[in-house]
Amino acid sequence: MLQFRRMYSQVPSKPVIGFVGLGQMGYPMALNLVAKGGATSFVVYDTSAPVAERLAAASGAGLVTVAKTPSEVAEACDVVVTMLPAGPHVRDVYLHASTGLVAGLARAGRKNALLVDSSTIDVATSKDVARAVESAGSVMLDAPVSGGTLGAEAGTLTFMVGSPNAQTFNTVKDRILVHMGKNIVHCGTVGNGQVAKICNNMMLGISMIAASETMNLGVRLGMDPKLLAGIINTSSGRCWSTDTYNPCPGVLPNVPAARDYTGGFGTSLMAKDLSLAVSAAHESKSTVTLGAVAHQIYNQVSSQKEYKTKDFSAVYKWLNDNSDK
Amino acid sequence: MLQFRRMYSQVPSKPVIGFVGLGQMGYPMALNLVAKGGATSFVVYDTSAPVAERLAAASGAGLVTVAKTPSEVAEACDVVVTMLPAGPHVRDVYLHASTGLVAGLARAGRKNALLVDSSTIDVATSKDVARAVESAGSVMLDAPVSGGTLGAEAGTLTFMVGSPNAQTFNTVKDRILVHMGKNIVHCGTVGNGQVAKICNNMMLGISMIAASETMNLGVRLGMDPKLLAGIINTSSGRCWSTDTYNPCPGVLPNVPAARDYTGGFGTSLMAKDLSLAVSAAHESKSTVTLGAVAHQIYNQVSSQKEYKTKDFSAVYKWLNDNSDK
Amino acid sequence: MLQFRRMYSQVPSKPVIGFVGLGQMGYPMALNLVAKGGATSFVVYDTSAPVAERLAAASGAGLVTVAKTPSEVAEACDVVVTMLPAGPHVRDVYLHASTGLVAGLARAGRKNALLVDSSTIDVATSKDVARAVESAGSVMLDAPVSGGTLGAEAGTLTFMVGSPNAQTFNTVKDRILVHMGKNIVHCGTVGNGQVAKICNNMMLGISMIAASETMNLGVRLGMDPKLLAGIINTSSGRCWSTDTYNPCPGVLPNVPAARDYTGGFGTSLMAKDLSLAVSAAHESKSTVTLGAVAHQIYNQVSSQKEYKTKDFSAVYKWLNDNSDK
Amino acid sequence: MLQFRRMYSQVPSKPVIGFVGLGQMGYPMALNLVAKGGATSFVVYDTSAPVAERLAAASGAGLVTVAKTPSEVAEACDVVVTMLPAGPHVRDVYLHASTGLVAGLARAGRKNALLVDSSTIDVATSKDVARAVESAGSVMLDAPVSGGTLGAEAGTLTFMVGSPNAQTFNTVKDRILVHMGKNIVHCGTVGNGQVAKICNNMMLGISMIAASETMNLGVRLGMDPKLLAGIINTSSGRCWSTDTYNPCPGVLPNVPAARDYTGGFGTSLMAKDLSLAVSAAHESKSTVTLGAVAHQIYNQVSSQKEYKTKDFSAVYKWLNDNSDK
Repeated sequence: MLQFRRMYSQVPSKPVIGFVGLGQMGYPMALNLVAKGGATSFVVYDTSAPVAERLAAASGAGLVTVAKTPSEVAEACDVVVTMLPAGPHVRDVYLHASTGLVAGLARAGRKNALLVDSSTIDVATSKDVARAVESAGSVMLDAPVSGGTLGAEAGTLTFMVGSPNAQTFNTVKDRILVHMGKNIVHCGTVGNGQVAKICNNMMLGISMIAASETMNLGVRLGMDPKLLAGIINTSSGRCWSTDTYNPCPGVLPNVPAARDYTGGFGTSLMAKDLSLAVSAAHESKSTVTLGAVAHQIYNQVSSQKEYKTKDFSAVYKWLNDNSDK
Repeated sequence: MLQFRRMYSQVPSKPVIGFVGLGQMGYPMALNLVAKGGATSFVVYDTSAPVAERLAAASGAGLVTVAKTPSEVAEACDVVVTMLPAGPHVRDVYLHASTGLVAGLARAGRKNALLVDSSTIDVATSKDVARAVESAGSVMLDAPVSGGTLGAEAGTLTFMVGSPNAQTFNTVKDRILVHMGKNIVHCGTVGNGQVAKICNNMMLGISMIAASETMNLGVRLGMDPKLLAGIINTSSGRCWSTDTYNPCPGVLPNVPAARDYTGGFGTSLMAKDLSLAVSAAHESKSTVTLGAVAHQIYNQVSSQKEYKTKDFSAVYKWLNDNSDK
Repeated sequence: MLQFRRMYSQVPSKPVIGFVGLGQMGYPMALNLVAKGGATSFVVYDTSAPVAERLAAASGAGLVTVAKTPSEVAEACDVVVTMLPAGPHVRDVYLHASTGLVAGLARAGRKNALLVDSSTIDVATSKDVARAVESAGSVMLDAPVSGGTLGAEAGTLTFMVGSPNAQTFNTVKDRILVHMGKNIVHCGTVGNGQVAKICNNMMLGISMIAASETMNLGVRLGMDPKLLAGIINTSSGRCWSTDTYNPCPGVLPNVPAARDYTGGFGTSLMAKDLSLAVSAAHESKSTVTLGAVAHQIYNQVSSQKEYKTKDFSAVYKWLNDNSDK
Repeated sequence: MLQFRRMYSQVPSKPVIGFVGLGQMGYPMALNLVAKGGATSFVVYDTSAPVAERLAAASGAGLVTVAKTPSEVAEACDVVVTMLPAGPHVRDVYLHASTGLVAGLARAGRKNALLVDSSTIDVATSKDVARAVESAGSVMLDAPVSGGTLGAEAGTLTFMVGSPNAQTFNTVKDRILVHMGKNIVHCGTVGNGQVAKICNNMMLGISMIAASETMNLGVRLGMDPKLLAGIINTSSGRCWSTDTYNPCPGVLPNVPAARDYTGGFGTSLMAKDLSLAVSAAHESKSTVTLGAVAHQIYNQVSSQKEYKTKDFSAVYKWLNDNSDK
């Protein structure tokens, strides 16, 4: 097993905080962190400079500086949060020989920086990057989120955090994450944030398809969907996908199924997370037969024009699509 | 849709009650019904006469009579409960031209009898038999159970009841089922008891395999199983199979996983229920891809010497069996 | 194992031949048998009397008589061929207490009749019915076909025949089946015709989906489909679905893929055969995971308006449907 | 689509040939190339120096030189063949900043070298590396093989070759590959060798499981396996896995099934190729449901002690393992 040093990173009382990756999730997260994080100085970077400028403009005068590379962010900051689309971007932002965060730390002679990666990526990349950061004398934590863009905007995200030790976890939680999220969980060592996220989301993806198959079967056999959901929810078939986020229209109010599957967690995001789970299973020689079938179902659903922008509970509708009942 | 008459069956204040099928479930159910059912006279039948005699001997003197055929039971009784292994047995016990229950009703000129089938069988057979009973002027309800032999002995079964109307449901519930079970649910019209049961159990079978794959994946990737279960159980992956009946040893006390998967609900019973679900899906042109894969997994597991008598959560162990971790 | 008697049925040199079930397959089969079968007298039955009258009219004057029930056919004939949609119809046509074939045999005191069932049904029903026929002193063979309506019209069907012995097989082959088919295979004892058919068609259904997934994957990754098919067909991935009936348009001429999947073997027929295979697997405690997934895929495809009348190779198109490539 | 330059690499009449990766496949391939390749000078590299020395000793005196790094091989050679376990090794051998092949080409100022990668890896890595080689003024072809260690020793491998143009393909085929293989196929542009291989092997992996499920089902239902295989092989279920490599013992001589599944193509190699197929499907948004289930089945089988060293047709045995028939 990978052993990370039990080092302690002291964060100054008025740290300079950096943020790399200002996309649909990163932008509102950074806004919250600027507004509530208590720092007097921020440095941000995005591949799109106008987006970074927009964030700076939206913040108080002089509070946010725009950097030209991730390495400039690392040179200037005590703490850096990154929020990127996939593993290769994380590798590039952290490890690029000239423009990466680690290169910046080296250039500035900075040690004991705290780097927090909130991207959802494969476990192997997360651990590789963490080792490189550690070799450079700093610490990386993986802290992927759930809660979507609404949670990012409201500052109510869940963070699943892998940290080399409890002290560092507590520091990052209290000084940084609490300003962007509500539920912040320590999942063990570095990389375990990713493990917890893909495990939960694989369980969720399978459950949602199972709930869709079950509700569809019952309805076609003549049962009232609310009655069926009520029976399952007080019995051993109960799960979050049946009692809180039921995919069958008419069972629950205020869920995507009640508004033609708009909003929520997109089918392609579920396909991505299931792909990460299947890959991690291959690496660890684990068998995930239902996980793999769920992955293919979300692959197919999310590739269709009608479903690619819908909530992942739309698999219920897809099961019925164009069918003669 | 099938329409059953909204007839009302009056049950005498001191009814004669019959019971057909005294197997592992039926025997303790009948014992409870005799002990608590308030009837002064019972007539029972089983293909094994010694078993029926044993039940009579175990009851108060003269309370229970042993019949030679199901039709003799029907001739004598106001209410009959049946508990049989599979569809063909139900068809035979109810419809056999000379020895069946319906033949007995006809012979005795009895109308408005209440027949309650607690077997878990296919929906089509259940509705067929109910129609034949109705044609004979009586009423059949389907009332499959969950809770296993422990629930049968303790009188704490859950009954999922399909009834032609609420009045008949209430009569059967208050006069009969309440003496054998704790949770008695009206699922709609005749046949819907079976629908509710296979829907719940398909959801359960898929969830249990999903929970096993997920816990196994997380553990192999280095997470503590209790920590992982805790995270899932407060997140969107939560289900009965993770929070109440977790298949990974060490997570919960007092579950089959804590005692090498002894006791509980056997792998072959789950295979049977999934087979009923897959068949019902075919009949109703429903797609149940995960249900079908779950069925095959329980088929394979339950055919192996080591697993055929184990609880269905043993699929967790099977995923790891003989593997080099 | 089931043991059928090694009885020998002598067929008169000018037998009276019966045919029950004049649907899309049965009608052209019966026409061929009348035209080429050498009998001077035929008796036919169908649930639709006009269809039976049409067959009689299409044949030579006085050659074909229309019966009012299957039992009338059995009373009059030395040999009877049946071609019915599913197991319950076969059970009814053979075993109905008053109008069934066996009742007719009994009424006429006829022994040693040859009954040939060409329906595709479940193995259990086939063996049950064969036993009942044997108890009545006659012989039933199961002889399901492949080749579709085109093969039925051209008289080029393949018959997979289960027979109690080789002699009876040879008699039925030479006197009856050769007039309707080209390839007539003895598969062993009664019931094995059904076994051979569902085994071949399960293999076929899986292979066709596999060929579709493979061709689709290769094309999306940039390969020319003809080149890819050529490589597979000279390598270990070769199968009938790639080298003779390739589902990818442009690879082969004169296959359904070359004409928008019209003609051929319908998606719902494949769904039916896979359902029989999955049920037989459950009965025999066999694991057929890929067979079960293939069944669900054909269930879903065949329930969609756009695909329900298409050839089963249209699963290739379904994989791409509505997708953004 | 990726466009490689249509450059022409002239190979001297007496080229210096390099070989990197002398494992179970690479060692016998290199031996054949040295023995038959017509070069007067070879340079080889392996991470294990003793293995490289052994190859040099086994060849004629002075014919083979052992290099200390891949870059030394590139500095000295006109043509280099690489045979490595997986994508990361290929990336490292080709692209390592100081010890990689491309670094060696640069150091030597060498242009128009021919690099031939026979590893089986993911398409994306193959194309990435090819682009880097092209930027350095040389050419990389992907040329994965099938045929196993026996084919490597006998010089009868099949090469599936992606080449920027036909001329380069012909040069590499006639001067290099023909000495190690028998069947050398041009699959189109660079990367397509990998595509052809994973497509064929996905088709093969699915077919082999399907053949195993089918033969097992038929045998359990009472059919003679040779008879069943004969019927399938003359019908539409026919495939290489049934007619040439049948997994059921007793059907064919001289296949792994006839010798307890020893020899042949290992279960873990099939698991690896299916993993590559599933990943490529995800990248290209292709749905491969059966491919994904086949991957999980081989994952599970190959992780078990009893099966990890067996031929991939042993999935037939695994389906029956420990079962009560």
